[in-house]
Amino acid sequence: MTAPHTHIIRLTDDGLRFLDQTILPTEERIVETADYRDMLEAIRSLRVRGAPLIGIAAAYGTVLAAREICAGAASVTDHTTKTPSISTLERTDFNPAASLDSSGPAPVADTASPCRERMLAVCEEFAATRPTAVNLFWALERMRSIILTTKPSDLPQRLEEEARAIHEDDARRCAAIGQYGMDVIPRDAGIITHCNTGALATGGDGTAFSVLLTAHRAGKNIHVYADETRPLLQGARLTMWELQRAGIPSTLITDSTAAMLMRQGRIHCAVTGADRIAANGDTANKIGTYGLAVAAHHHGIPFYIAAPLSTVDLSLASGADIPIEERAAEELTCWAGYRTAPEGVGTYTPAFDVTPAELITGIITEGGILAPPYTETLAAAGA
Amino acid sequence: MTAPHTHIIRLTDDGLRFLDQTILPTEERIVETADYRDMLEAIRSLRVRGAPLIGIAAAYGTVLAAREICAGAASVTDHTTKTPSISTLERTDFNPAASLDSSGPAPVADTASPCRERMLAVCEEFAATRPTAVNLFWALERMRSIILTTKPSDLPQRLEEEARAIHEDDARRCAAIGQYGMDVIPRDAGIITHCNTGALATGGDGTAFSVLLTAHRAGKNIHVYADETRPLLQGARLTMWELQRAGIPSTLITDSTAAMLMRQGRIHCAVTGADRIAANGDTANKIGTYGLAVAAHHHGIPFYIAAPLSTVDLSLASGADIPIEERAAEELTCWAGYRTAPEGVGTYTPAFDVTPAELITGIITEGGILAPPYTETLAAAGA
Repeated sequence: MTAPHTHIIRLTDDGLRFLDQTILPTEERIVETADYRDMLEAIRSLRVRGAPLIGIAAAYGTVLAAREICAGAASVTDHTTKTPSISTLERTDFNPAASLDSSGPAPVADTASPCRERMLAVCEEFAATRPTAVNLFWALERMRSIILTTKPSDLPQRLEEEARAIHEDDARRCAAIGQYGMDVIPRDAGIITHCNTGALATGGDGTAFSVLLTAHRAGKNIHVYADETRPLLQGARLTMWELQRAGIPSTLITDSTAAMLMRQGRIHCAVTGADRIAANGDTANKIGTYGLAVAAHHHGIPFYIAAPLSTVDLSLASGADIPIEERAAEELTCWAGYRTAPEGVGTYTPAFDVTPAELITGIITEGGILAPPYTETLAAAGA
Repeated sequence: MTAPHTHIIRLTDDGLRFLDQTILPTEERIVETADYRDMLEAIRSLRVRGAPLIGIAAAYGTVLAAREICAGAASVTDHTTKTPSISTLERTDFNPAASLDSSGPAPVADTASPCRERMLAVCEEFAATRPTAVNLFWALERMRSIILTTKPSDLPQRLEEEARAIHEDDARRCAAIGQYGMDVIPRDAGIITHCNTGALATGGDGTAFSVLLTAHRAGKNIHVYADETRPLLQGARLTMWELQRAGIPSTLITDSTAAMLMRQGRIHCAVTGADRIAANGDTANKIGTYGLAVAAHHHGIPFYIAAPLSTVDLSLASGADIPIEERAAEELTCWAGYRTAPEGVGTYTPAFDVTPAELITGIITEGGILAPPYTETLAAAGA
């Protein structure tokens, strides 16, 4: 299998280390913490983002919680030292003592009920960080099963095993998505993508990005056009960083340049990731994906979604049922501390939109490429 | 007629004052200069922008040049003092001495030929500032006619009269566009617009913005959705500022949110300005206009262009012939001095795209609303 990219997120005996994606590409800063509350903040503030990686980060976060809550009082004796906040943890030298300094709720005695209750409450806290990406709930459900069926003193170890399995499993899924997806990428083609879907967003080489990477490595001579992806510029900041490091020929554009490129005949295929796929194939992904799909449709260009089956939510009949997160107005009206719009303006800031199934040529999964009608093919894929 | 918005640009006996649009909405800074070279820089750097206003600014710029070149040596005696650069002129207290400090090419004796040649060369310099908006060339052509037919000593006065006429004429055109255009705006409607087309872009109330303003003042109860308009955010910085000052209910969105709003049924009409309209109706406008038109078409939403007839270029058969300006990569990869993409990435930064005539429901002009086939209606409108 493909080894997980350990510089993106890595659990150690002392805590969790991850790359703070909010300050890329200016700086590659590793954050480290032993406090699961820092992971709640990291997910909410997009220090860690990307649907599959959110699930992985939440799984690891519950491990930190279990080490604090369930490991027994013996190993934690000093509750007077305040847990370092995430801002003071932003350094590259790791402090193994951090996990011993943990405060917050005092560790409970090793009786099953209070420990389980507190761990289930932690899962609820993680579930409340971001509403749209279903991989989060999928990963937390796996952790909940462990919590409900494991002796509390064993929880730190069992949850760690499960979180590592989720991480490694996602890396395998990424590799399979890349292999299957490569087949739909023409030779000498211009490919457009939106937002970030690579190692920064997953446990492996990515979803849509894995397709691009695999096609590039196979010598297909592709050129990738990356939408900058307003408002948080994941395309400009993260995807261009990954494309550059992978040596894939690429061009950055504003989101609104995509349609012009299509009209010029420079785009032969579009591939994006997904945050949640409903039973009928309607897909929520980063805001702007729908407009890109409409433009691709208008120009007769195939439009693919690439995502692990953990992104599929068969409990939702259609995209109309997918909850869409709205972000703070400041993400639109400010940049680097500067106002880019007058004070007090009205804003609408959905983080995602829904692309209806009829605009999606195929859904590239680790189980193969699914074709319409998705209601049948998604169900058959065991999503 | 509607009085020109004198805070946007104003010629005085001492020079030219204009609002620096690059630093709105953070600051409302008036720049003043007596040196036409500063106006070349101001147009190139978008301190003054918007197709009609570029024409007006270039016309006024030639007046500054005429005052320097053609007014005779009598009024300019000191050539040792360097003309203040535009950066030192960025103050709100006006210095009437500035025009007397003018340096640059020494004034010529009042013989017709060298003065005319130099003035025609100044027109060429203005024509080279920006390639796409045809209003620039249209205004300069009017100034060239004066230069070729007027005694050089009379040029400062005659060019000033012509520049003021172009300015006031544009204000009248804006008012007429608003009156005609209002008819296509439904009551209680959501209207989407792209880039900036108001007083900041024209000599009056604007083009598309005038339509919105007139409909609002007529009590049509509209709500305007403004695309932020990447990369330079003219929608966020300028249109939202104008909408707010006009008291028009409005919401700022990323460019990539437009399609989602259309799918939600919140948009009933789209109106934008234009930088150049070819004989067949194909229209160049700010990058992103084409994608917006494609999305409007997909959702069955009427899409209008609003522009004075000075924007029409009958010498070009179709939009394929319109030269499209490409801007510096830094406008995409940096903001407020911060990099938003890694160093060295490839970029594609067209400032405009072309919307084909078949996606345009109507072209709102000061002569009425033109319908397809535009080859006939534009020619008949005397464009």
